[in-house]
Amino acid sequence: MASHSSWSARTLAHFRRGGKLEPFRLLKQDARNIRSRWVSDWTIFNQLVVASAVYVFFTNILPGITFASDLYVLTGRSWGTIEVVFSTGLCGVIFAVFSAQPLTILGVTGPFSVLAENLYELCNDSFKVPFLPVMAWSLIHSAWMHYLLAIFNAHDWTMQYVTDFSADIFSLLNSIIYFHKAAMELKRTHEQMPLDSFLYAMIGAIGTCLVGILLSTATKWKPLFGRLIRMGLSEYAAAISIILFIGIPYIGDLADLDHGRLAVQTSFRPTNPDRGVFFVRFWELPVEWVFISIIPGAIITILFYFDHEISSIICTVDRYGVKKPGGYAWDVALLGTTTALCGILGIPPANGLLPQAPLHSESLRHWVVEEDQVVDPDSEESDARANLVPRVYEQRYSHFAQAAMILVFVSPPFQRVLGFTPTSVLAGLFMFMGYQSLSVNPMLARFFHLLTPPSELPALPAGVGWGGVHAYTVTQIAVTVGIFAVTLTVAAPGFPLLIIILVPVRLCVMNRVWGKETLRFVDGWACREGKPEDDGMLGGDEGVVGGGGDLEGGGERSKSQ
Amino acid sequence: MASHSSWSARTLAHFRRGGKLEPFRLLKQDARNIRSRWVSDWTIFNQLVVASAVYVFFTNILPGITFASDLYVLTGRSWGTIEVVFSTGLCGVIFAVFSAQPLTILGVTGPFSVLAENLYELCNDSFKVPFLPVMAWSLIHSAWMHYLLAIFNAHDWTMQYVTDFSADIFSLLNSIIYFHKAAMELKRTHEQMPLDSFLYAMIGAIGTCLVGILLSTATKWKPLFGRLIRMGLSEYAAAISIILFIGIPYIGDLADLDHGRLAVQTSFRPTNPDRGVFFVRFWELPVEWVFISIIPGAIITILFYFDHEISSIICTVDRYGVKKPGGYAWDVALLGTTTALCGILGIPPANGLLPQAPLHSESLRHWVVEEDQVVDPDSEESDARANLVPRVYEQRYSHFAQAAMILVFVSPPFQRVLGFTPTSVLAGLFMFMGYQSLSVNPMLARFFHLLTPPSELPALPAGVGWGGVHAYTVTQIAVTVGIFAVTLTVAAPGFPLLIIILVPVRLCVMNRVWGKETLRFVDGWACREGKPEDDGMLGGDEGVVGGGGDLEGGGERSKSQ
Repeated sequence: MASHSSWSARTLAHFRRGGKLEPFRLLKQDARNIRSRWVSDWTIFNQLVVASAVYVFFTNILPGITFASDLYVLTGRSWGTIEVVFSTGLCGVIFAVFSAQPLTILGVTGPFSVLAENLYELCNDSFKVPFLPVMAWSLIHSAWMHYLLAIFNAHDWTMQYVTDFSADIFSLLNSIIYFHKAAMELKRTHEQMPLDSFLYAMIGAIGTCLVGILLSTATKWKPLFGRLIRMGLSEYAAAISIILFIGIPYIGDLADLDHGRLAVQTSFRPTNPDRGVFFVRFWELPVEWVFISIIPGAIITILFYFDHEISSIICTVDRYGVKKPGGYAWDVALLGTTTALCGILGIPPANGLLPQAPLHSESLRHWVVEEDQVVDPDSEESDARANLVPRVYEQRYSHFAQAAMILVFVSPPFQRVLGFTPTSVLAGLFMFMGYQSLSVNPMLARFFHLLTPPSELPALPAGVGWGGVHAYTVTQIAVTVGIFAVTLTVAAPGFPLLIIILVPVRLCVMNRVWGKETLRFVDGWACREGKPEDDGMLGGDEGVVGGGGDLEGGGERSKSQ
Repeated sequence: MASHSSWSARTLAHFRRGGKLEPFRLLKQDARNIRSRWVSDWTIFNQLVVASAVYVFFTNILPGITFASDLYVLTGRSWGTIEVVFSTGLCGVIFAVFSAQPLTILGVTGPFSVLAENLYELCNDSFKVPFLPVMAWSLIHSAWMHYLLAIFNAHDWTMQYVTDFSADIFSLLNSIIYFHKAAMELKRTHEQMPLDSFLYAMIGAIGTCLVGILLSTATKWKPLFGRLIRMGLSEYAAAISIILFIGIPYIGDLADLDHGRLAVQTSFRPTNPDRGVFFVRFWELPVEWVFISIIPGAIITILFYFDHEISSIICTVDRYGVKKPGGYAWDVALLGTTTALCGILGIPPANGLLPQAPLHSESLRHWVVEEDQVVDPDSEESDARANLVPRVYEQRYSHFAQAAMILVFVSPPFQRVLGFTPTSVLAGLFMFMGYQSLSVNPMLARFFHLLTPPSELPALPAGVGWGGVHAYTVTQIAVTVGIFAVTLTVAAPGFPLLIIILVPVRLCVMNRVWGKETLRFVDGWACREGKPEDDGMLGGDEGVVGGGGDLEGGGERSKSQ
């Protein structure tokens, strides 16, 4: 009895002021954070912001449309291009204005599409209930679950323990998924089109990717062109390449060729001809189904919560030098709201999108001289040589602009423009995104180290050996490949759970296999430029492992809250 | 009378000891030079030599075979693949052993092919005389003309005045010709093949070129793979790419596609079925035609003399840091001998080949610490940072090996292997060679400077302005384009003469348009790494302009004699 009452007392203590589950603790903190940053988010502006908006626009809308074509078939025409574009634009505009972390780009994700397709099959084939009202209720249930997660500070007792180990794996997984999607797109062309169309599709896809990569190196072309032109070519690399390869199939003999192009709609109304407006009469569902919808609602909540949080984490990792506070709890509550709204409108809900969210940060990154560094006023050279640190333009314009542009593409004339895009350009864009995402992943450098003889490898800190580092890298790659294999099965919607399981595995199991110094070295090695992070961050990280109850000293991850 | 006798005396003085035309002066000097280097040419060996031989083998035999297919049609089947391969191999082996400058690679050139085709037309259509005996006599006449040029030191009173101005233009012209040949090869595929074959040809050509370029950067991939693997990938870049893209058309659906492949022969005998052996009964020609052949003989002599000399000059320019003496007069005499030999064998004669000769030097180039530099023994860093200077492995193995390999490909089984090569790979190789040749051409950097705003251009030496430099660059480009236009007309075989005319234009006319400092800056700027040459060389160059009679102080060009 004594032990039971002490257990109850300890449980209740979590809900008290300063406790783990103290209601609204994080939400209040996030609200303060938003007040401290919101006005300044609209006063920062730079040409990089425009370039970033254009880049994110293309990388968001074009993949979204391919998901849409799958959805169209697998939800019995309940959803199509217009629903996906509408949702991406609407949720994007809302998050651009009201979110705590405007770097996190939103879109309709692949895992959600798979989940929705399974739910449609159950509704339509097994239970003979209408799909859209069930989905609407699922999303409404999901909303209050999101609110609960926000109110009870779920971020603190879950995501704080995510280290680079999981973030790197999730990022690599996204690169692999995009390369795989590119290959699937080309395979489909190969199967459905004559050989000449397929051969041109290879040229279009590889061309889009390579021209994009080539142009993205333009900043290093000095002395060729002016600085502004070099920057422009580099920042608009993907857009220039996409537009170029949208045009090429109209030239000469290529115009006579069959080109697979994006399937779009040409009027602003729901895809399904039975629906007149974007609104679901959700109250007309039998009452038992209102309750049964709690089950898919819970699955969607888990998916959205983890997907959105991990997107926010990866787009604010250390290498971007994000300075302003974000607000995970606030954004989860906002995500619940937009999710319910999408349910009622009868469109698929959007959430944090990978790799678009970190690519957004990447496209806004620039370098500044470290603030606290004393620059010798007599020597201009020491100024130039000073250690540069990364910064991101933390503002709301780029998020807002890309979402607004996407919303414009709901209108029929713009839909027609989208319809000019060959699927080969899409495959090329997928490869480009996969490459961009992979090239900044620290696992790539460590994979290269696996292939390098020990004599040529760089020096390691004391207590760290290449054997341990290599084993860690091989483990990460094996885990990634395993999770990727799962995404190819019916269990695909569950893959965020696998990423989550990695967190306790990293914190509890891996500490027994690898030494502390090795984990400090590889798990904090997030900087693309190859300089290992300073120990401060990892000190915090290790602190979490040691004293899990310390909520305020939450290491690196809490920086951007 | 007095002035006449003084003129005769002065003319005769040229033939006396130390005079401009003193017979055998250069030949004797060259013979001494060969004695001083020949043994050491066989004692230097390095793995780079093997890589160079493989690279030159591919870049020599494959383009040669395309010339052969033109020759086959336009000489009424007098010459085909086997004659071109035989000549390239035979002349190569002879020059590898006996030449004074083993860096100069030989092959059957485009201009000679055009000349031979015109001569065939005249013999066959207009005068009804047998082509091969006329060609044999032309080449025999050409031989003694070569000997005269060698005996009377022609190199000294012609080539010594060639500056970078002409060499850069000739080098750029070769890049353009190769890009144009690649485009023509693909155009032919487009016209003669179905669209799918053409689309694959584009993939094969661009793929061969890009994979070659990518692999050639392997030395910069550190840390990835070991140093030896990186070097191997880089040195064998073209060979790996060629073999890869020879294999790809046999994969999957591509195997069913029509691929244009190199046309080869499958027995070791002359192409023309009327000929049994490689020997021309040249004495059976009517005697008047023996004399008439002096005219084509003279044209061939001019062509070969200038082409071979310019090839030797460009493959020993300053940026390769060639140290051993060559021997222009000796090589001209040797060229006369092989030319007559080819005439009697009834095969097309080979001579110095661009851009293969400088690409040969390029592939043998490495960097050493400057010999006379004092390295601080206490500081390892200053050693690493020391100024590196270029050197070339000056030996006879790479020249000999590539020629011997080519000679092996005269045999039927190896001819069959050559026949696996798609013409698209050839187009890709042409682009790769054009790119390689262009990337080390100083005009490229200056062309980029044309497109750069003045504020971002590097600083210039005193007395030099960007206006003058830009005007010089534009002039060079305009001249190159003009000469290229000539190569597309019937006047094509005369194009080496245009290059030669540039020499007096540079020395006499351009000195009035551009200031001395500007010419010193742009005309001595031969180093790829962008560091302008030291003034020593240009001092010598200017010396030539000032006092043209000074034979010994002949500036940079005489270094490698």
